[in-house]
Amino acid sequence: MPNPLVNPTHDPELRSWVGSANDRATDFPIQNLPFGRFRAAEGDRTGVAIGELIVDLTGASAAGLFAGAAAEAAKAGAQGLDQLARLGLPAASALRFALSTMLVDGSRHRTGIEPFLREQRGTDMLLPMPVRHFTDMCVSTFHIGRRRGTDSNGQPLCPPAMRHIPVGYDGRPGSVVVSGSPVRRPWGTWQHPEGEGEPQFGPEPRLDYELEIGIWLAGTGKDGGSTTTIGEASEAIFGYGLLNDWSARGIQFFETMLGPFLGKSIATTVSPWIVTSEAVAPFRIPAFVRPPCDPPVPVHLDDADDRHAGGLAIALEAAIESAAMREAGLPPHRVCATDFRHMYWTPAQMIAHHASNGCVVAAGDLIGTGTCSGPDPAEAACLLERNFGGPWQLPGGETRGWLEDGDRVLLRGRLERPGYVPIGLGTAEGLIEPALQVFG
Amino acid sequence: MPNPLVNPTHDPELRSWVGSANDRATDFPIQNLPFGRFRAAEGDRTGVAIGELIVDLTGASAAGLFAGAAAEAAKAGAQGLDQLARLGLPAASALRFALSTMLVDGSRHRTGIEPFLREQRGTDMLLPMPVRHFTDMCVSTFHIGRRRGTDSNGQPLCPPAMRHIPVGYDGRPGSVVVSGSPVRRPWGTWQHPEGEGEPQFGPEPRLDYELEIGIWLAGTGKDGGSTTTIGEASEAIFGYGLLNDWSARGIQFFETMLGPFLGKSIATTVSPWIVTSEAVAPFRIPAFVRPPCDPPVPVHLDDADDRHAGGLAIALEAAIESAAMREAGLPPHRVCATDFRHMYWTPAQMIAHHASNGCVVAAGDLIGTGTCSGPDPAEAACLLERNFGGPWQLPGGETRGWLEDGDRVLLRGRLERPGYVPIGLGTAEGLIEPALQVFG
Repeated sequence: MPNPLVNPTHDPELRSWVGSANDRATDFPIQNLPFGRFRAAEGDRTGVAIGELIVDLTGASAAGLFAGAAAEAAKAGAQGLDQLARLGLPAASALRFALSTMLVDGSRHRTGIEPFLREQRGTDMLLPMPVRHFTDMCVSTFHIGRRRGTDSNGQPLCPPAMRHIPVGYDGRPGSVVVSGSPVRRPWGTWQHPEGEGEPQFGPEPRLDYELEIGIWLAGTGKDGGSTTTIGEASEAIFGYGLLNDWSARGIQFFETMLGPFLGKSIATTVSPWIVTSEAVAPFRIPAFVRPPCDPPVPVHLDDADDRHAGGLAIALEAAIESAAMREAGLPPHRVCATDFRHMYWTPAQMIAHHASNGCVVAAGDLIGTGTCSGPDPAEAACLLERNFGGPWQLPGGETRGWLEDGDRVLLRGRLERPGYVPIGLGTAEGLIEPALQVFG
Repeated sequence: MPNPLVNPTHDPELRSWVGSANDRATDFPIQNLPFGRFRAAEGDRTGVAIGELIVDLTGASAAGLFAGAAAEAAKAGAQGLDQLARLGLPAASALRFALSTMLVDGSRHRTGIEPFLREQRGTDMLLPMPVRHFTDMCVSTFHIGRRRGTDSNGQPLCPPAMRHIPVGYDGRPGSVVVSGSPVRRPWGTWQHPEGEGEPQFGPEPRLDYELEIGIWLAGTGKDGGSTTTIGEASEAIFGYGLLNDWSARGIQFFETMLGPFLGKSIATTVSPWIVTSEAVAPFRIPAFVRPPCDPPVPVHLDDADDRHAGGLAIALEAAIESAAMREAGLPPHRVCATDFRHMYWTPAQMIAHHASNGCVVAAGDLIGTGTCSGPDPAEAACLLERNFGGPWQLPGGETRGWLEDGDRVLLRGRLERPGYVPIGLGTAEGLIEPALQVFG
């Protein structure tokens, strides 16, 4: 059966008159068309990535290049991506179709839109939209089970709730920053890793990254107390990006009585481009196959025909480049290669559960999926898990446990499937800066 | 030594030409002058409570009644209390002084401001300001220790971190609503109280209130990574209000792997008036006296002379009015009488700790202190603690464990000290509505 979510904008035969968009290695072929915000001399603007270029959507909209539903969507998007996301998926889809038509090889709109193209290189990207709420979930049993071993069924040992519901917590919206923002090592209260000795207040010794997917929501939500079905939850996903949930492990473990707090609010880095729900449609896969010993899917998250709650295959990797490697001209070193397919719950299930208590989730909400670890040790998507195997090496001979000052962490995501043109999520990166000398 | 924070606006001899402000029972004498927002035919406006009336600050500001720093503060405040709070405490203080001068008995400004007065009764109050961040802390050892008993030193048994740092977690800003907003019983996943049987998805059976103080922050915060001293933290408090952190205990306990989430995001009710830092100055008390067996105050929260980190005495109470009581004409029944003085950490310590990892805390931040329970059983500030003593009775003969549909919960707070005119925080109330019939 053909994928009902695939349409002519996904056609693998489409090529763009923007040459760099036709390179198989690009994250941004004409089949992707992600949205982002950038800084320009004229003020902050909305853009669409195509190959190595950006379409200035704010400019193109003001010039009257769009018509009908696409014009309305472009006008909203020009003001801010939260405005576009509020309109819902049909609006974003109309705009995507118009952009595809304008950027395709031989388009009669080329001369109209060409003046609104600029280079990505050298352009300052901004947070894609204001983050009103940031929720972080934890839906990889492999992430939680890595250090706990397996149960009698050979499944990762996890708190039972993880297999009944997508577990999550509220994060701090103001801590979300765009890729490229520096990450300063925080001060905080922490204890020796073995829990020995008095807690001390000092610069965090166990700084970590967490490779996650960020889900940007669409729509205006439903009135408090109303149901959000799996189908509605699926319609509430504006798009996806990379998310690095930087974690100060010493602080996190000491303060954890009510969940993560200052161990997480140091910074959360997101990639600048939102790859839309529509763009990822070809890469949908069935939901994670639950082992027979696991509890049944609860009623509010059940989607018998898997039409809405489907999973997503995204090849993910994290790489580290130390200051010494940078100086020696060595490229970033891959420390993790994993896939989003390992998540126990699907994005639609996460959203339906989030809204199940009447909580209004809407455009402006960003949901982190939690560390996207898979079963294999090479799929450990943070250092907490990797360090479980003891100290490890970077090229050039450095030994590592946790992140050091000067380390740059880079996350990447790529969606590929035979018969389709691969697309990518771009990059989320951040450089660790030393702690300020502020106390004692 | 006289309290250096007390000034002529606190003078107990001051009386207002607004008669109801001179009643000893009012929460809003001329010594209080709290800020709030209300709905008017002309649009949303900022107001100041005086007795049973409201000064329309937006109108008075537009009419040019203020001069100098007070005019600047009034203009910002007229747009939104977050704008006034951003300016910091000196601005709010200048405005308070001007208002005091205008409302005092015999003021030559009376004819100017009198046209901008309206009745509180019948006026729809709004959320005092947009909540950008909501943090909930947990700083009463009595709250956590109630069900755990005492340690070998006779102190409440708590996780050790509670005595090293003010423990907190991020809440959901969008869940904060103003007093009077209905609270719908949520659906969710919960287990039998004894943890027996399969978890089920249904309307929450263990709905609870939590009596807390809400701290509204001022200023623009400090750059990421910078120190916030106790003194600076003290200057970052715009004011105080009541806060009911409604809690769905079944949901909360089942999902708690990463802290409270859907068990809390149903609603958090705040009182409509922000009672300023300056207004509460006469009611400051020394910080909580730590038992000698407790760990020393950490360096970043230490305030040797207790000049900034001082505590605050606020007499607090919670009352419940059931549907049957309402029908029978019975008044709300007090279920808790406690005091803010029992908090282990002071507001300034909470803020200094919150900012210690470089997190920027600023106007738009609301911090809940956590349930304000004291040592006595009558000071149990939520039903979870109260139920520990078994079922209890409401007037009219109803037996209660948890909140029932139709229950109205009212919180009140009052500050009194010999030699000063008492002031109050007003009321935070909410009525429990039945769960929607949405699943199964």
